[in-house]
Amino acid sequence: MARFMDVHTDMKGLDQKALEAAHRADLDIESSEHVKFLHAWADPASGKVFCLSEGPDKDAVLRVHEKAGHPTTEIYEVELETE
Amino acid sequence: MARFMDVHTDMKGLDQKALEAAHRADLDIESSEHVKFLHAWADPASGKVFCLSEGPDKDAVLRVHEKAGHPTTEIYEVELETE
Repeated sequence: MARFMDVHTDMKGLDQKALEAAHRADLDIESSEHVKFLHAWADPASGKVFCLSEGPDKDAVLRVHEKAGHPTTEIYEVELETE
Repeated sequence: MARFMDVHTDMKGLDQKALEAAHRADLDIESSEHVKFLHAWADPASGKVFCLSEGPDKDAVLRVHEKAGHPTTEIYEVELETE
């Protein structure tokens, strides 16, 4: 499994309830693609949302988002991390 | 304090040692700007690095990166998050 960060750019005005609903829609179907969404961060002012996930490949992660109704094409395999 | 995600786009070919060195350079000076870097994720293939931080404002976070020698201008205040 690899780790990914994907980026949405069109969620301006999102609130906590909408973020949780969108994330829940991913969680509800992620197992069908062997994906696990770990965390999401959102900036309602710009409409940017960052989602951290684990999965077999980029396409599997993007398919979950597409099926859940909030598709994006911007995704990166984050092979490295530190804290 | 607010939470931020900043994005670097010019770190292609980064390895784990270089990521940790860059992150360490931020940690060494972050307190001068009342910033706390929490985590960084990197994709060496595209050169993207995502840094999660807490601080008083965007400019304070960007000043730490600039002083540490890896400036960026792309930053978002991530007011919302979920897991």
